[in-house]
This record gives sequence, C-alpha cells and structure tokens, in this order.
Amino acid sequence: MTHTFQRPIVLASASPRRSELLTYMGVPFRVVVSDVDEGMEGPPQALVVTLAQRKAQAVAARCPGDLVLAADTVVACGDAVLGKPRDEEDAARMLALLAGRWHDVYTGLCAIDAAIGRQETALDRTRVRFLPLTARDIAGYVATGEPMGKAGAYAIQGRAGMYVQAIEGSPSNVMGLPMAAARQLLQKFHPAF
Amino acid sequence: MTHTFQRPIVLASASPRRSELLTYMGVPFRVVVSDVDEGMEGPPQALVVTLAQRKAQAVAARCPGDLVLAADTVVACGDAVLGKPRDEEDAARMLALLAGRWHDVYTGLCAIDAAIGRQETALDRTRVRFLPLTARDIAGYVATGEPMGKAGAYAIQGRAGMYVQAIEGSPSNVMGLPMAAARQLLQKFHPAF
Repeated sequence: MTHTFQRPIVLASASPRRSELLTYMGVPFRVVVSDVDEGMEGPPQALVVTLAQRKAQAVAARCPGDLVLAADTVVACGDAVLGKPRDEEDAARMLALLAGRWHDVYTGLCAIDAAIGRQETALDRTRVRFLPLTARDIAGYVATGEPMGKAGAYAIQGRAGMYVQAIEGSPSNVMGLPMAAARQLLQKFHPAF
Repeated sequence: MTHTFQRPIVLASASPRRSELLTYMGVPFRVVVSDVDEGMEGPPQALVVTLAQRKAQAVAARCPGDLVLAADTVVACGDAVLGKPRDEEDAARMLALLAGRWHDVYTGLCAIDAAIGRQETALDRTRVRFLPLTARDIAGYVATGEPMGKAGAYAIQGRAGMYVQAIEGSPSNVMGLPMAAARQLLQKFHPAF
C-alpha cells in the first residue's frame, strides 16, 4: 500500500494500541503527547469528542504545519462512565459492573491541519456484551495486570476476549482507535489516506 | 488466573492466531497438526463443524488420554463459501466479493476427551461488514501478503481492520478461535477452564 501524501501525521496519544492500529493502517506518523486532563463530566458522546479536540488542539499548537490526530475512549455502562482504572480495586469494581451486560464503548476522534487551522471530528460507538464473570474470574484477570491503563479495565484483544460474548460495531474502536472511522476522517484532509 | 486442572490440552491447528488466542485464555496446550483435507462442499454451518470434528478425531487417535481441541473457520458471502485463498489472484477475487457488503464468519469447534471418547461441538457466527474497497485498496492489501493463509483473505486484527465498518458477534471468531465459545466448550470437560 503506497501513499502519495507528503506529510506524516502526528498522533496525539501515548497509547501503544493506538500506535499499533495506526501502523496497521500504513500511515506514517510520529507521537507527540499532550497533558490534557482526562477528568471531565457529561454525557460520554460529547465528552470523548471534546477531550479528543483538546488533545488535538494542545498538540497542534506545538506542531504548526502538521496534521494532528487525537482520540479519547470511554466505556459507558448504564449511568456510569468508565475511564482508566485508578488501581486494582477500581478495576475489579469496573469489571463487576460490566459482567453479564451490554455496555457502550465511545471513541471521539479529532484531526487538525495545523497549517490552515482546519478541524474535523468523528464519533464511533461499539456495543460490547460480557459473559457473566465470577469473583474468581475478576480477581484472576485483575492479577494479570492487563486492565490497568485501559478504559473500562479490559483489553478485548487480550485475555478479556474470552469474556466478550459479542460486540456490535468496530472492534478497533474497543481498542481505542476505530480504524475505519479514522481513515474516513483522514481522507477528508487527503484522499490518499 | 490459576487453573487447577492437570492435563494440558492439545490444539489440533497449525494456525498461529489460534495458538495466540488460546494463550490469552491462560490454557496450557501443545500443538499437534492433522492433515485433514479442508476441501468439502455443503452449507458452511455444517461444514465447519464436520471439519473440526475430523481434525479433532484425527489428532485424538494419535493422542490417547489427551483433551483435543480443533476448529475450522470459513467466510460465507451470499452463496459463496470462502476458505484460504489459493494465490494473490484468488485473494483479490475474495476481497472484491466482500467489499461494501455484510458477510458471515463461521467457526466450528470440536473438543474430544480421548481418554473416554467424549466429544462436544460448538458453532459460532459473526457478521462482518466491509467498507467499499477500490481496486487500489485491494491491490495494495494483497501486496502486503496479509491475506494469504486467512479464510476470506483478510486479517481483522491486522491492516484489514480499517476496511471493517462493523461486526456483530465475537471478534476472536473472525480471527479463527471464538474465545468465549471455546471456553464454554472446554468448561463442559472441566469447570476450571
């Protein structure tokens, strides 16, 4: 897959999973991380887009002339909005909440062409249903360390895959970067993406 | 996650993705490959279960006393049933067929406790929708080599993730081993799986 565009993009995210997925897309990029505070209130659909915008804007200010891509992902289950767990106890609480139920994973995307100030956003949603989990399942999974650093305290591409009965929507969205939506967003800036 | 069962299982598959997914499940296993001919006719739902049974039976005959797990995966799109592509041309034909449409991924599972002759089977289905693909998309993806060796000529966990708009069902099923279904099948033999 050869791309004819000249500028590599700037990924405004420290997530190794987002880097991995962007690599799969064949997009040349470098990582510049912002220090945007992820703590915010509000409905998850608006929250993730707003946080993606803030991350993209913070990095665009430091990278004039670059095309910046940022993302923010949360898990919404009933009235609860789950980001990354604070500690193992918090991870266990989140997993107990998700067990045996459907939840939503939302990712907000924002791309900014810092050279001309153009900004585009997108939102992706995937529904995920977990199997019922025993206390032993949860304790065992938390002990692997995999939940830490992941929104909703699980990695669908890892061991938690065996707890996922079904999803509806983009699998890569659940990993933090909806590849099809990201590609469509970048294509607004250049058709060769 | 500690398991208390004694016997490791035997995975009757040469697929590195199935080994990876079984590793994520925390199941100790070794690989013994059968030489069952994958060429067969018939409806995909029956086909994959029958082929999984044949693979499991062939390996169980060589591993008396072991618990054997086998799987077979095909892609069904309209009337077409797609296994692994024969060559790059065949891969391009499959991808052109899948572009812009929903298709079904079926995996048949069979577990045999060779010590007592007990056999259990399961079937999992995931619907997958591809974005429309240009001839350039297809040629570029085939050139990466990723389609070879994969049923339906794509790897959802790889670059093809950006062509997948949505799925309905288990993501790991699309990779060849539905983790939740496999765990439930193995739990019929031992609750500690």
